[in-house]
Amino acid sequence: MKSKNDLLVVGSIAFDTVETPFDKVENALGGSTTYITIAAGYFTKPVNIIGVVGEDFEQKYINLLKNHNGNLDYLEIIKGGKTFRWGGKYHLNFNDRDTLFTDLNVFENFNPIIPEELKESKYIMLGNIDPVLQLNVIAQLKNPKFIIVDSMNLWINIRFKELIEVISKADLLIINDSEARMISKEHNTIQAAEKIISLGCKNLIIKKGEHGALLFNGNEVFSAPALPLKSIIDPTGAGDTFAGGLAGYIASTDDISFENLKKGVIYGSVLASFNVEKFSTLGIENLKLEQINDRYVTFKKLSSF
Amino acid sequence: MKSKNDLLVVGSIAFDTVETPFDKVENALGGSTTYITIAAGYFTKPVNIIGVVGEDFEQKYINLLKNHNGNLDYLEIIKGGKTFRWGGKYHLNFNDRDTLFTDLNVFENFNPIIPEELKESKYIMLGNIDPVLQLNVIAQLKNPKFIIVDSMNLWINIRFKELIEVISKADLLIINDSEARMISKEHNTIQAAEKIISLGCKNLIIKKGEHGALLFNGNEVFSAPALPLKSIIDPTGAGDTFAGGLAGYIASTDDISFENLKKGVIYGSVLASFNVEKFSTLGIENLKLEQINDRYVTFKKLSSF
Repeated sequence: MKSKNDLLVVGSIAFDTVETPFDKVENALGGSTTYITIAAGYFTKPVNIIGVVGEDFEQKYINLLKNHNGNLDYLEIIKGGKTFRWGGKYHLNFNDRDTLFTDLNVFENFNPIIPEELKESKYIMLGNIDPVLQLNVIAQLKNPKFIIVDSMNLWINIRFKELIEVISKADLLIINDSEARMISKEHNTIQAAEKIISLGCKNLIIKKGEHGALLFNGNEVFSAPALPLKSIIDPTGAGDTFAGGLAGYIASTDDISFENLKKGVIYGSVLASFNVEKFSTLGIENLKLEQINDRYVTFKKLSSF
Repeated sequence: MKSKNDLLVVGSIAFDTVETPFDKVENALGGSTTYITIAAGYFTKPVNIIGVVGEDFEQKYINLLKNHNGNLDYLEIIKGGKTFRWGGKYHLNFNDRDTLFTDLNVFENFNPIIPEELKESKYIMLGNIDPVLQLNVIAQLKNPKFIIVDSMNLWINIRFKELIEVISKADLLIINDSEARMISKEHNTIQAAEKIISLGCKNLIIKKGEHGALLFNGNEVFSAPALPLKSIIDPTGAGDTFAGGLAGYIASTDDISFENLKKGVIYGSVLASFNVEKFSTLGIENLKLEQINDRYVTFKKLSSF
């Protein structure tokens, strides 16, 4: 089971009710771990999942994650418990959304315990959860090689001190442009990036939605394009899918050089571009490696001159 | 004087008074033709200028344009007239600006007459002027190969019909993202691009400021990155400089293929990145070809994977 290409994922598993300007889906599979696992599983295995669900988490979802190289041996299933539920509604521009409800359920008491045999994991993807839990996970690791951290505006607002500590221990922090401005209090993206990197994360990705993403390491910068999309069905999980594709690719290649991180950013973008084409995880459930590689070539064509 | 690499430029020559959040400059050389000529002159010659100035247009400015391969034989100098003056103030974000004053002066009666010997120009750059004048110029041309058109929100608002006619005759239209939304009434960039191309321009560039630019031709798309800049001194003329660098490069290579347009977009971006580093035309007045090529390589490194 253990190899240098293992990926350890800690995050949420949820059922999402999502309203877009054009359609709606109820209690669809979601959560950061779900998207991360499915995306990463196209590149590496096993994807070891530390998470919690309720008794309502049906076998078909377990099978889905297993079929995507998820290892669910450590998944906690709370008897009589209900899985985390989230509801949100997107604005017409698909960039802004309102949270309609958050029922933490079994996730409220989530306390990620890393089993002995996973403590030496080299590649770790910490999904967007409370920085207190992220620190808790990091403290249990022995000699990690590459810790990838995702976060969000909520934690910048209510757990700033802890988030800064997480950033100081991260090898790669993934945030979006408005979060970068919130953390750094700088409007200029480059100045924001410098300030955040000075907090201690070795690499930084600033996602810019339809404008692509920037990857920073010291004085090096990589500008990744976004695939121009004519229509988006559901952006839920795009950030998690991006992170998962990237994490899976990096773990599979066991290469954390800047050149390889660039490729990881593109693979992450490829998976995210599939994800937004359908509701829930439907866009990334049944991809062929050929489709992924074809779209990678599309990204290459899009930006090469 | 006439060769297939000639570039004909029609636009404004002005003196600008510019206030930024940090500094101010008064009556500095500006106007679309000025930036276009200087940028284009690094690539091709002559840059034939059709324009009008007042008697206050000093010899040093004439020399500056001549030194950058500008041909001023057809420049109209109105005795006793005053050159066009514009004043603007940038907001803290450097994206928005307020016009403080517009003194058209001799530009008010500008009526571009193309002399017989320039009517067969192959490459034409129509700077951001009244679409009525742009149509007037196009009507005088004999067998043009590549007409590049710049425009702005003002003309979309008050000369929409004429602008649409200009677009139908353009080989390349250059606008920014908000102008693309205004013209197409589409929020999605790709849908906006399709709609504008359906108006008849063969190629379309949508500039996205700090997020780079998109080049469209039929089903082909190219995403150009922007150079991540830590500070901007003065964005005035960046769009004109971009257009000028692109136009000069395309005219010099006499190659209007999509692959070569991509390179033109990058050369335009290179020149624009120098322009914003200083007030007025100071950032692009004294460039060495080596500096231009070095920065081209920087753009390549920035986006290649």
